[in-house]
Amino acid sequence: MEKGSMLYEGKAKRIYATKNEDIVLIEYKDSATAFNGEKKAEISGKGRLNNEISSLIFLKLKELGIPSHFIEQLSDHEQLVKHVQIIPLEVVVRNKAAGSLAKRLGFEEGVSFSKPLVEFYYKKDELGDPLLTDDHIELLEIATEAEVTAMKEQALKINEALIPLFAEMDIELIDFKIEFGKDNDGHIMLADEISPDTCRLWEKNTNRKLDKDIFRRDLGNLIEAYTEVFERLGGNSTCSK
Amino acid sequence: MEKGSMLYEGKAKRIYATKNEDIVLIEYKDSATAFNGEKKAEISGKGRLNNEISSLIFLKLKELGIPSHFIEQLSDHEQLVKHVQIIPLEVVVRNKAAGSLAKRLGFEEGVSFSKPLVEFYYKKDELGDPLLTDDHIELLEIATEAEVTAMKEQALKINEALIPLFAEMDIELIDFKIEFGKDNDGHIMLADEISPDTCRLWEKNTNRKLDKDIFRRDLGNLIEAYTEVFERLGGNSTCSK
Repeated sequence: MEKGSMLYEGKAKRIYATKNEDIVLIEYKDSATAFNGEKKAEISGKGRLNNEISSLIFLKLKELGIPSHFIEQLSDHEQLVKHVQIIPLEVVVRNKAAGSLAKRLGFEEGVSFSKPLVEFYYKKDELGDPLLTDDHIELLEIATEAEVTAMKEQALKINEALIPLFAEMDIELIDFKIEFGKDNDGHIMLADEISPDTCRLWEKNTNRKLDKDIFRRDLGNLIEAYTEVFERLGGNSTCSK
Repeated sequence: MEKGSMLYEGKAKRIYATKNEDIVLIEYKDSATAFNGEKKAEISGKGRLNNEISSLIFLKLKELGIPSHFIEQLSDHEQLVKHVQIIPLEVVVRNKAAGSLAKRLGFEEGVSFSKPLVEFYYKKDELGDPLLTDDHIELLEIATEAEVTAMKEQALKINEALIPLFAEMDIELIDFKIEFGKDNDGHIMLADEISPDTCRLWEKNTNRKLDKDIFRRDLGNLIEAYTEVFERLGGNSTCSK
């Protein structure tokens, strides 16, 4: 599939058109950013690992009956996905308190929640991605009440699928961020990526961090950790070429 | 009613016990604070005006079938109220964008909402009173889902009562903050105060601010503005002594 013109460049990915208008090509970059872009670095190998890991996870979710925009991995850094309009919400699911939530609400990091928490953040860099209530989402006309309910349900279903997937690898899924997109028919589906950039993954028993907190908090070698996640996931490239 | 020991001191009020354990005495202070206590001043006369205005508004709401903790005004600075446990939520109702919301979500100040927005903030100074979603409230065990629904409904009912009350005075109710308390039987009722300290009140046509934004943003003489609100409301002291 030939790479067309660049449609969008985000902090961690570039999106390119293809000859088929229903399909776009995602190129994973080696850029690492945190704290709304305040901390930045180039980490050679990160793009490939996130592309590999995200491809594997989307495939596994598909086997479990959870569709996404993912079509196939094309190369080390590239995958083909369905062309969707990204809904400007970061949908966060949390099983334990960590990161910004722990700080905002005064929870000690690692405290378990009695049930998973779903939160929506407004994907808007210039506002610092603020937390939104359901009423804010309606007010901003980002999504309808029914769409919000559907995204919450889908996010919890994805959590239920990801928890055992990581547990088998002796990794605890603390929290993760997903995004949803709308296809041309208005169907909402899982999009963006699922990788150690977008999940908090703690090694069981040791609580060793295997995710982007390594970069955020300068905790060691990010590539070693991401490689470990990739290998525990099955580890062979799903590259079709 | 004799003033007993002080039970609580907040930024703008002190609460005292009385001989009747179901009744407490509220003393309104002249202290003005903003931005989570970062800006402070003593403004002579503010306590009296807020006590007078809040007493008048609680009386008017009672006439409209909306009960509150208010029993009677005792003196310039004091009122008697039912003893309730304050639920640690600031319940904010917004008819137009202003203040922190305008900034957080990127609305221009003064933009009308298609319907009133209700928000909950966690009353916790050390966390900076963070915004909460319904799920956060449940997670923090601050209130049950049914109680959240009841507070939302009550807040919107209060908004419906306050809008015409201020409109008659040529004042537009932009937004306001209320708090709810639980009495010994577990009944939730409107508590705290309703005053220019807790409402955004804009003069119709001119948009002149008649509320605490005068203090927050150094817009002029706060006492003159609060006196004007008091006089437009009816203006005679409801003092029983």
